[in-house]
Amino acid sequence: MTNQHYDLIVIGSGPAGQKGAINAAKLGKRVAVVERDGMMGGVSVHSGTIPSKTLREAVLYLTGFSERTFYGRDYRLRNRISMEELASRVQMIVRRETQLVRSQFNRNRIAELDGTARFLDANTLEITNGRERTTIRGDHVLIACGTRPARNPLIPFDGKRIVDTDQISVLSDLPREIIIVGGGIIGLEYASMFAALDIRVTVVEQHPQILDFVDREIVEALSYRLRDLEVVFRLGEKVVAVEIEAGRNRVVAKLESGKAVHGDALLYSVGRQGNTDNLNLSAAGLEADERGRLKVNEFFQTVSPHIYAAGDVIGLPALASTSMEQGRLAAAHMFGAPFVHEASLLPYGIYTIPEIATVGQTEEQLTAAKIPYETGLARYEELAKAQMLGDETGLLKLLFHSKTFMLLGVHAIGQRATEIIHIGQTVIAFGGTMQYLRDTVFNYPTLAEAYKVAALNGLNKV
Amino acid sequence: MTNQHYDLIVIGSGPAGQKGAINAAKLGKRVAVVERDGMMGGVSVHSGTIPSKTLREAVLYLTGFSERTFYGRDYRLRNRISMEELASRVQMIVRRETQLVRSQFNRNRIAELDGTARFLDANTLEITNGRERTTIRGDHVLIACGTRPARNPLIPFDGKRIVDTDQISVLSDLPREIIIVGGGIIGLEYASMFAALDIRVTVVEQHPQILDFVDREIVEALSYRLRDLEVVFRLGEKVVAVEIEAGRNRVVAKLESGKAVHGDALLYSVGRQGNTDNLNLSAAGLEADERGRLKVNEFFQTVSPHIYAAGDVIGLPALASTSMEQGRLAAAHMFGAPFVHEASLLPYGIYTIPEIATVGQTEEQLTAAKIPYETGLARYEELAKAQMLGDETGLLKLLFHSKTFMLLGVHAIGQRATEIIHIGQTVIAFGGTMQYLRDTVFNYPTLAEAYKVAALNGLNKV
Repeated sequence: MTNQHYDLIVIGSGPAGQKGAINAAKLGKRVAVVERDGMMGGVSVHSGTIPSKTLREAVLYLTGFSERTFYGRDYRLRNRISMEELASRVQMIVRRETQLVRSQFNRNRIAELDGTARFLDANTLEITNGRERTTIRGDHVLIACGTRPARNPLIPFDGKRIVDTDQISVLSDLPREIIIVGGGIIGLEYASMFAALDIRVTVVEQHPQILDFVDREIVEALSYRLRDLEVVFRLGEKVVAVEIEAGRNRVVAKLESGKAVHGDALLYSVGRQGNTDNLNLSAAGLEADERGRLKVNEFFQTVSPHIYAAGDVIGLPALASTSMEQGRLAAAHMFGAPFVHEASLLPYGIYTIPEIATVGQTEEQLTAAKIPYETGLARYEELAKAQMLGDETGLLKLLFHSKTFMLLGVHAIGQRATEIIHIGQTVIAFGGTMQYLRDTVFNYPTLAEAYKVAALNGLNKV
Repeated sequence: MTNQHYDLIVIGSGPAGQKGAINAAKLGKRVAVVERDGMMGGVSVHSGTIPSKTLREAVLYLTGFSERTFYGRDYRLRNRISMEELASRVQMIVRRETQLVRSQFNRNRIAELDGTARFLDANTLEITNGRERTTIRGDHVLIACGTRPARNPLIPFDGKRIVDTDQISVLSDLPREIIIVGGGIIGLEYASMFAALDIRVTVVEQHPQILDFVDREIVEALSYRLRDLEVVFRLGEKVVAVEIEAGRNRVVAKLESGKAVHGDALLYSVGRQGNTDNLNLSAAGLEADERGRLKVNEFFQTVSPHIYAAGDVIGLPALASTSMEQGRLAAAHMFGAPFVHEASLLPYGIYTIPEIATVGQTEEQLTAAKIPYETGLARYEELAKAQMLGDETGLLKLLFHSKTFMLLGVHAIGQRATEIIHIGQTVIAFGGTMQYLRDTVFNYPTLAEAYKVAALNGLNKV
């Protein structure tokens, strides 16, 4: 029954928890991180970002996806790809990432406490690990407990054919046809991977359009490419019942419109639920909303100013990249280090196939704000590097002010879009113009060169 | 015997010629480009950048190079890769790039004149194509005739086993052992590709070190990686004779130090020679140096102010990226369009395996200039994306001013280094600091994220 005292106790070791803990440790603070046994790195490492993005790279390589440009659309590197092969690759990366988190904690002398945390009062937590219980006290607490897939009582999850995104790895045989309920980022990322694996995918989404915060031209390019891989979209459709067809081992999803969608498996990817239910928040004077999320102010403080929250548990955008930054900033604020928040220039990376990235304003936003703008386009088919990589359909679109030529938004789809978007992000951050991009020398051949091509295209229009 | 008149005659359709012609056409000028039959796009498309970089991507894919991290260093995607397979891929891209150049010329109503050009006077050129001769006149001329591999009388080139870099494609069987004479950028790029193909490579270089303009730590990482692929370096060694061994069909290169290096083939990649010899320069009042190069001023004008030169023919850096910019700027200057020269921030992309990129100042330059600096490092092994891509050895190094924290130089080795270098280039161009990189949100997982990791590393040191 030790009663250890820390400057900061972090609940959860995902991206927000990690960066919060490390930043506090770098500031010379005594820090402990509480995480469930075997979950070091959190959902991001074990069932979220890391496994899904690793799976994506493995699928791209093992299917020979981009080689189809050279060898024809029927080219497959391997005719049969097993879930085991994919899973073993994922496991390798998950192990390494787990070690990486652990070694960073060790290097920064951050205590790792195995178990689940529960508030006894606003500064005291009880850690339960099997039968063991420990009580610890902290001057500050950072709640970075993350989320889990939301459950829908209409869906009879069986962990075999009807699964959520945490259970993908249990699909021991790859299905031939899959129904994906939910056309958000996660649903579309999995739809892409399954389609690249020659699995027939039907996406059912309640909204009439997908990714409504992304540039329409980019979304249409994605839709086109996914349809080309035989993905079927059922948009504006609501699932009212899911059943296993009697005797046939097939899943059927019944839609409100009367249609039925069939498949060998169903992946449910609608919404996530905060993991706050077992934290005994009320003992700390806190309360979560109906989806288990916590409300914070601009400094990531909850209503108890010494208790911070960051990451998925505070809601959108719920990306690993932003969660890291939130965690780091929360620690900076609690210990009086400089706090700079660049939230207005948040990039989005969507790991569909092809991948999408976006930063700054969209045409829709600029039109609504009555800001006059022009566009500069670069099609990947014009880029030597894209041809070498087998990407003929990518697109980089720059939005710039028609009078000042300042860059206002960058929207991209195609290989390495999530990497090169940061060039545009930097130009926007420093108030740079299209002339800067036109006059800059870019390595040749690269995809980054698209900026110069797009700048010339845009400036030729005005 | 037409006597057509143009605002601009461009000699050569490589990167410099293309961009010069297109820029002039966009400014409303009448433009003609002279190029030898079948060489549209120049050396860059037919035997330089495009074939070598396409070969590189094909080698990386077909060998399964980066997959060795997952499957062990003995993993090969294909056990035998034929030169035909590699060549067919190269031919596909060469055809497409040629079409692309041609269609850009058509779209901009640029006249294509097949043949070789020869000055009759400072404004008149004779174009010879087989037996046909045409005379054309131009108010301006842009000489962008490029270079060819320099020949050394000591080397008995036979176009079969002893070849220059224009003749790589004639190596119909891939050799088992190759000698590369010349450890410059081109020599090292080919050394990397051959080594990845399991060919034993010996690089003979007269200088005591390779790539002396690149950060030492990056060069050492490259040397280490190439040695790991069994590349042997003979530095500070001079070739004095090359022979085919009698009856053995083997090549031997004898070195001044008395050593002998053996192989099945020899690639000579030392220096290049300007293609100015047949231009009859004296008729235009011009003269080339002993290596066939032309001297130009900062506006790319030769001693005859209406005759410009750009691209490899004016000497270093002789990269496609810089040649394009030179051609574009030359056309801008001759027709009074805005001329902005960002030469101080020239990026370098070196397509070795792994690739290298660099921009801004090196440690050596900063030390010589007595500018106090600190370094920020990100090792790819710390990046989730690098793990997914199978790159455990990459490195991003930031150099920044110890007092102002301004970013001064970026040096990188590893996958996509040539792409992500442009993020740092933009930060340097706008006078940005390490704090900017620390406070920026990067997509996760990306290699671009290395900037944030390196910024945190660097700032923690000061």
